Amino acid sequence: MQRVTVWNENRHEQKNPKVREIYPEGIHGAIASFLKEESFEAKTATLDEPEHGLTDDVLNETDVLLWWGHLAHDEVSDTVVKKIHQRVLDGMGLIVLHSGHFSKIFQTLMGTGCDLKWREADEKERLWVVEPSHPIVEGIGESIELEKEEMYGEHFDIPAPDEVVLMSWFEGGEVFRSGCTFKRGSGKIFYFRPGHETYPTYHNKQIQRVISNAVKWAQPTTRNIPIRGNAKPLEDIKPKD
Amino acid sequence: MQRVTVWNENRHEQKNPKVREIYPEGIHGAIASFLKEESFEAKTATLDEPEHGLTDDVLNETDVLLWWGHLAHDEVSDTVVKKIHQRVLDGMGLIVLHSGHFSKIFQTLMGTGCDLKWREADEKERLWVVEPSHPIVEGIGESIELEKEEMYGEHFDIPAPDEVVLMSWFEGGEVFRSGCTFKRGSGKIFYFRPGHETYPTYHNKQIQRVISNAVKWAQPTTRNIPIRGNAKPLEDIKPKD
Amino acid sequence: MQRVTVWNENRHEQKNPKVREIYPEGIHGAIASFLKEESFEAKTATLDEPEHGLTDDVLNETDVLLWWGHLAHDEVSDTVVKKIHQRVLDGMGLIVLHSGHFSKIFQTLMGTGCDLKWREADEKERLWVVEPSHPIVEGIGESIELEKEEMYGEHFDIPAPDEVVLMSWFEGGEVFRSGCTFKRGSGKIFYFRPGHETYPTYHNKQIQRVISNAVKWAQPTTRNIPIRGNAKPLEDIKPKD
Amino acid sequence: MQRVTVWNENRHEQKNPKVREIYPEGIHGAIASFLKEESFEAKTATLDEPEHGLTDDVLNETDVLLWWGHLAHDEVSDTVVKKIHQRVLDGMGLIVLHSGHFSKIFQTLMGTGCDLKWREADEKERLWVVEPSHPIVEGIGESIELEKEEMYGEHFDIPAPDEVVLMSWFEGGEVFRSGCTFKRGSGKIFYFRPGHETYPTYHNKQIQRVISNAVKWAQPTTRNIPIRGNAKPLEDIKPKD
Repeated sequence: MQRVTVWNENRHEQKNPKVREIYPEGIHGAIASFLKEESFEAKTATLDEPEHGLTDDVLNETDVLLWWGHLAHDEVSDTVVKKIHQRVLDGMGLIVLHSGHFSKIFQTLMGTGCDLKWREADEKERLWVVEPSHPIVEGIGESIELEKEEMYGEHFDIPAPDEVVLMSWFEGGEVFRSGCTFKRGSGKIFYFRPGHETYPTYHNKQIQRVISNAVKWAQPTTRNIPIRGNAKPLEDIKPKD
Repeated sequence: MQRVTVWNENRHEQKNPKVREIYPEGIHGAIASFLKEESFEAKTATLDEPEHGLTDDVLNETDVLLWWGHLAHDEVSDTVVKKIHQRVLDGMGLIVLHSGHFSKIFQTLMGTGCDLKWREADEKERLWVVEPSHPIVEGIGESIELEKEEMYGEHFDIPAPDEVVLMSWFEGGEVFRSGCTFKRGSGKIFYFRPGHETYPTYHNKQIQRVISNAVKWAQPTTRNIPIRGNAKPLEDIKPKD
Repeated sequence: MQRVTVWNENRHEQKNPKVREIYPEGIHGAIASFLKEESFEAKTATLDEPEHGLTDDVLNETDVLLWWGHLAHDEVSDTVVKKIHQRVLDGMGLIVLHSGHFSKIFQTLMGTGCDLKWREADEKERLWVVEPSHPIVEGIGESIELEKEEMYGEHFDIPAPDEVVLMSWFEGGEVFRSGCTFKRGSGKIFYFRPGHETYPTYHNKQIQRVISNAVKWAQPTTRNIPIRGNAKPLEDIKPKD
Repeated sequence: MQRVTVWNENRHEQKNPKVREIYPEGIHGAIASFLKEESFEAKTATLDEPEHGLTDDVLNETDVLLWWGHLAHDEVSDTVVKKIHQRVLDGMGLIVLHSGHFSKIFQTLMGTGCDLKWREADEKERLWVVEPSHPIVEGIGESIELEKEEMYGEHFDIPAPDEVVLMSWFEGGEVFRSGCTFKRGSGKIFYFRPGHETYPTYHNKQIQRVISNAVKWAQPTTRNIPIRGNAKPLEDIKPKD
């Protein structure tokens, strides 16, 4: 059974009654809840816990980490970011959600600024499937429609993704690469755009399905540990006639 | 259980006693045999059977097709190639082996000439893993060594692969992209270099492991069928305020 | 000076007065005209000329070929397609426009069906730049807006492009990968979506700029001719101690 | 005329008479020297200069930066690394040479560990061209042979490169992705493997040609500055009927 840790900054929930109303158990609680229904072993962790809830013990039992942050990216400790970074390179899956595009961990893995264009105007969003046979969109039809969401528009300052699985259309006239996969070291990373805190996006069944699929996809493989550093001496490795 | 069809031209086996000695049941027989031991449902098909053994009934029960050909690429009927092409686009996996680089089906899927440099000189080959966490090399260490193989050297005239999983080193001084993945339509394609008919390459346990892994990897997903052609009228699709 | 041949099916222009009114010299004439103003050496060729106007003499003097076709893809001779295919692999640039997605030459180079979703409903299109520093969008701002165009929507059945330079938004709610680059052999290929025959798209200065930029980008390099086939004997190539 | 700054750690040259003998003016001096002959405006900068010689004034006049480091990656100031990082994202070209794979700037841009396997054993290296029509290998034949070099072997822990232009073969039996391109933000990056300090690699005419070509290739384009952050209000951008 896959072991998932859903990390959330959990600040909007404290400050904004509207967010609390939509997500009474926090965004992390809502996501962990539907993942449990899908038979994942899902735990949560939040910014204000010691070590942000991401101790070695927790990470040792995490196959895939989900990340939601927005207001307090700067409060995430560099030590924790460095530790997560190494875990991802070693194979832990990472799903970065919505405003997590500006998180330290995503920026560190991408090597770019990860900036984008945005607008809060209760706009319709349609997420179109551009890789129909990708496991992340299994069970999704042609597109997902969200009645109201924040707009994110191009240019999105990321390295060329390995795969663009979903692309968004917004009522106001913009487009966005909304579902992007990356591999860094042995770790699989999925960036998934929707999920503004004032909309019930994570209660949408199709959005839940994409996240569940992504967790399965990001599961670490039984991998080879590459041997690096000083190689065997020439006489030991050079093929003999 | 995955249903695999191993297609082989099966001509060298008829003409060359050395090949028959190494592969008494043909290259196709040898490959089907180790796939069965790995619990795949493996059948074989050869050039000289009616429709080259690839009738609609056979293809309807094929999840992944393996392809070995060399002497008689031109004898493969264009009708059969066209049919296989469509099956791959619809999701059937395809593993192209060794001299299959010049097969009609591989050239058709690639859109390029697929030429390369070659030499038969009983050379050592080392296949190095360059994507250590890829499922196709699960269980493989750093590299696979083959005592004697035909050399294939760059430049290999293919489109940039989606992933280069293995790269070969040859005693004579050449290198080659030996394990390459491609996606075309909904179908996953793996080109795997080794397997010259006069060497016992397909009896090598590590080579068998790569092929078994590739068959698992190439399994069709439960995919969406993209809707194409004439779209719904504007009044039906345009979001309403 | 770059030598460009603009190929057009030139059938809508004969049948439809509306098209003739917008493009009195044909779509090919309109494109060649603005390319000449940009100091390219631009010629035209059309379907109904002998060898579709694409004789060896013409192709020998063509650095980059543009392709517009729609009604009569099937009337393009396989011999000519084969010849152009080889030219592209040998380095000739190719710009495929709009409904050329279904041309034999594009399908042959892609290896996929190249199907898509479409609707004619006088919709607004916005083409967003997703690779802002790409030479193909030099001089283009954030986006290009076309008041009325035919809609093309995902899923677009092509191999993953090397680069997605432009993505389209449509009024009706769809998105599309509108500016895609591919390399096949030594040839650079650019697919550029807009250009339905009943709209004055090729008179738009920004669209002209993208096409001019693409022609420059697709120019053949002074390339190495890869040596392929039978390699030098082992004793000639194997490094000596 | 392109303005190039060749940065070198310049430590081996101080400590090791053998290195000083091969590169009396330092590795930076040798590289700047052949670039000047090719009519680039080439300057040098080294670790022990104030701000490592990379002041704002210097960077303002740098189109492409070359980077050679090995012993003292940790001594490079984080402030300077951060500044260079931003310059690359803004379009400055970057050529990372040999042991620069472990430099802070390369690791920051890649987001991975950038580790590899190595051995110093006076081995032959052959660099094979795998993208024959790429401008970086213009004028290079099939391969470049270096009589003696340090070995670098896979697995090389980098994100999948945009393009692999050159692959190395080593006498001892390893292979390596030796010439890799990446784009980050608006900046073009080329990693080029050869150049161990105790061999006269940068005096080799073919190696010089690759570096000169790479400098031309990495030149910033006249690019669009993407607009990011808070977008225009919905009523200003939403297409009107």
